[in-house]
Amino acid sequence: MNNSLSLQLLGEFIGTLVLVLLGDGVVAGVSLNKSKAKDAGWVAITLGWGMAVTLGVYASAFLSPAHLNPAVSLGMAVAGNLPWSSVLPYSAAQIAGGFVGAALVWIHYGPHWRATKDEATILGIFSTGPAIRSYFANFISEVIGTIVLVFALLTFTRGNFTDGLNPLVVGVLIIAIGLSLGGTTGYAINPARDLGPRLAHAVLPIANKGGSDWAYSWVPIIGPMVGGAIGAALFLLIP
Amino acid sequence: MNNSLSLQLLGEFIGTLVLVLLGDGVVAGVSLNKSKAKDAGWVAITLGWGMAVTLGVYASAFLSPAHLNPAVSLGMAVAGNLPWSSVLPYSAAQIAGGFVGAALVWIHYGPHWRATKDEATILGIFSTGPAIRSYFANFISEVIGTIVLVFALLTFTRGNFTDGLNPLVVGVLIIAIGLSLGGTTGYAINPARDLGPRLAHAVLPIANKGGSDWAYSWVPIIGPMVGGAIGAALFLLIP
Amino acid sequence: MNNSLSLQLLGEFIGTLVLVLLGDGVVAGVSLNKSKAKDAGWVAITLGWGMAVTLGVYASAFLSPAHLNPAVSLGMAVAGNLPWSSVLPYSAAQIAGGFVGAALVWIHYGPHWRATKDEATILGIFSTGPAIRSYFANFISEVIGTIVLVFALLTFTRGNFTDGLNPLVVGVLIIAIGLSLGGTTGYAINPARDLGPRLAHAVLPIANKGGSDWAYSWVPIIGPMVGGAIGAALFLLIP
Amino acid sequence: MNNSLSLQLLGEFIGTLVLVLLGDGVVAGVSLNKSKAKDAGWVAITLGWGMAVTLGVYASAFLSPAHLNPAVSLGMAVAGNLPWSSVLPYSAAQIAGGFVGAALVWIHYGPHWRATKDEATILGIFSTGPAIRSYFANFISEVIGTIVLVFALLTFTRGNFTDGLNPLVVGVLIIAIGLSLGGTTGYAINPARDLGPRLAHAVLPIANKGGSDWAYSWVPIIGPMVGGAIGAALFLLIP
Repeated sequence: MNNSLSLQLLGEFIGTLVLVLLGDGVVAGVSLNKSKAKDAGWVAITLGWGMAVTLGVYASAFLSPAHLNPAVSLGMAVAGNLPWSSVLPYSAAQIAGGFVGAALVWIHYGPHWRATKDEATILGIFSTGPAIRSYFANFISEVIGTIVLVFALLTFTRGNFTDGLNPLVVGVLIIAIGLSLGGTTGYAINPARDLGPRLAHAVLPIANKGGSDWAYSWVPIIGPMVGGAIGAALFLLIP
Repeated sequence: MNNSLSLQLLGEFIGTLVLVLLGDGVVAGVSLNKSKAKDAGWVAITLGWGMAVTLGVYASAFLSPAHLNPAVSLGMAVAGNLPWSSVLPYSAAQIAGGFVGAALVWIHYGPHWRATKDEATILGIFSTGPAIRSYFANFISEVIGTIVLVFALLTFTRGNFTDGLNPLVVGVLIIAIGLSLGGTTGYAINPARDLGPRLAHAVLPIANKGGSDWAYSWVPIIGPMVGGAIGAALFLLIP
Repeated sequence: MNNSLSLQLLGEFIGTLVLVLLGDGVVAGVSLNKSKAKDAGWVAITLGWGMAVTLGVYASAFLSPAHLNPAVSLGMAVAGNLPWSSVLPYSAAQIAGGFVGAALVWIHYGPHWRATKDEATILGIFSTGPAIRSYFANFISEVIGTIVLVFALLTFTRGNFTDGLNPLVVGVLIIAIGLSLGGTTGYAINPARDLGPRLAHAVLPIANKGGSDWAYSWVPIIGPMVGGAIGAALFLLIP
Repeated sequence: MNNSLSLQLLGEFIGTLVLVLLGDGVVAGVSLNKSKAKDAGWVAITLGWGMAVTLGVYASAFLSPAHLNPAVSLGMAVAGNLPWSSVLPYSAAQIAGGFVGAALVWIHYGPHWRATKDEATILGIFSTGPAIRSYFANFISEVIGTIVLVFALLTFTRGNFTDGLNPLVVGVLIIAIGLSLGGTTGYAINPARDLGPRLAHAVLPIANKGGSDWAYSWVPIIGPMVGGAIGAALFLLIP
């Protein structure tokens, strides 16, 4: 990646924006009242999130390495694919992209918010939440999911997410994690995907919204960061 | 593209015909009474539309650049990939293809129209309509959906839709937009896909049909054109 | 294809056997009582048939051109990709493969046949039938479906189904035809896929079976043959 | 494969671990009470298992030939692609990977086990069981499914599972077998995928668990081994 850091940050911003616009978008479509996609189910959500990540990778591919996720950036630093000094600015750009992507979902689904009276449904479009609230178990779930994410990313891309078929295989990986490991916490596995939209939820004047559940918000931040570091370390252990 | 303009228009006509035959076809299959695909759901519709576009791109690929969509042709003109003088003839060929494709859907599902008594269902097979009627919000939805379409098309194809894997990735993009942004207006994101079939609906002696909702018809025309221009302009802004 | 005719016929036999084993298999899984796949729906059926064709193409690819379908072989003869003298022997090998594939489905689902009391369900696992019986309309549906099949096959493969990604794209095409055009007649679009299993249904001692509906059986034979010839002719018309 | 045997065994262990973590994981997600994926259905399960195998192949690809299945290793020995002396150590590594993968599923879904009161559901997350118990018919089903697996693997990979697109096509094959042939016994088609998790089920202190159904356990071991040998032998018979 020979681009300047500011171009890389622009790439991470755009890619994460696309990722969250399409990712939170599919949850909105399936959850909001009167939406044509209402109740399309878990397969729709997991396919939608997988494609969201694929298209996010494509959208950032000519500017940045398309991490789109602070836990991935941390893992790539552990694996020696990213300068440590880039982890924090990358994460900030990713969170900002997540915020703007979520705001666009809010605009896109305009009149559907007023038609939806359930506060938990509305928060669930922006951020993840646990199926059974148990912070320790939820944290472990996010760690395991992100270990799989970062370890698998490294095994099939060797650190280059954007070459050839890789953006499509990244999408397959996200679908797989969603289907297989997403049932517990909604697979944040990405602090920017969770914190950016949660900030948008807190700030925007969304109809029928309730609290932003900040008590839970550390789980989808710390869990993925720990998992990303472990996943990269496990990869390095392989001869 | 070294073909003559008339060959290019033939390609756009054939490709859009295939796109609408398979795209309107999946809505017909899921919506018409006694169809074996009845109630197969939103995942079936979005998968079907995605593959319809992939196969439309393949069908036109040796004749034309496979835009199959006036909003895409406009965006390509903005991005410098199409002569401005081609936008109107391309659009006309695409709308004509959409008309014939929709007429073939009508023929294909022959006795199923009489078995279906709901006027809104029948119009919904041909053209898009809003989940919540609100012209301004519906217009914004079409703009946002088409920005994503044209911006993403440019990021991963650099303007060449037909090389290598690109027709498949175009299909993935359409599925993603459908799942994530389609719940509000049914994601026309293509004036030819909407106007061609709406004209067919108005003209053909379809059993149990009602009005063609011309009051709404400008939304899926103007919205995508605006979105296509913005999407291409945003792409040009990236260094 | 430099193989001898007998090797080519072996390839068509094996490929069509795999195609029908997996294709009729998915209908059996979704239809038979007590099956774990019971009621998995139309998306499961169309995905299953698409992959069945992909794997049939792979299974025959080193021996034959992987037509697996008399209508495709006829179309390839029209398009100049197959000697006319091969069409009949190919068709016979394909029908024989369809017969054996269907017999294996019968063996595979052993005790599930006795658990399923509905004669129409059991015939529907082997052969196609109309959603609304109307021989002329059903015939037109099969013609249109097979035109799309053969025209699209020629546009993206140029007559070579087995190179590179083509077996996967062939599967996408089959899924698309199933989703978009399958609701009327169950998309035989292949006489060997329909006649081979219908013969198996007539001959084998299947529990709870009824008649084999020979009155309808010409539709999924003549319709696809007519469509295959038209599809290839339309392709030849393109400059 | 120039790696030492111990590196190959590490690869088989890691790959089968990933395969079972994601494969048993999707069944857990769809089956356990309060999971967000609850009742996502057979399409979710078959897609999840297919991607699990794809990602298992990627995870082991730089260390081992990615068989991840004793029946495949046996078939590859029959086909001359693996030294006979490697079959037993490969199988042991694969079973160990299956055990650890299943244990991680247990950890990942922490509080959901207590929320699920049905013993058969819990065993079904770990190991396969018959839809209709009939040992002979169940055995035949596993034989047929594994014949298709090994024969198809050899036809499109020529014995190399990890090159280019092959890991994705392997996933398509697994989805196809699941959709088309999985309804009878849940398509173990892999002794390591069944025995490893069954041992984990027997040993771990899982809430609400019952017996491990050892009476059935030979079917998903012997059936796949027989099928794997036959599938490879059939491939060798082709000229």
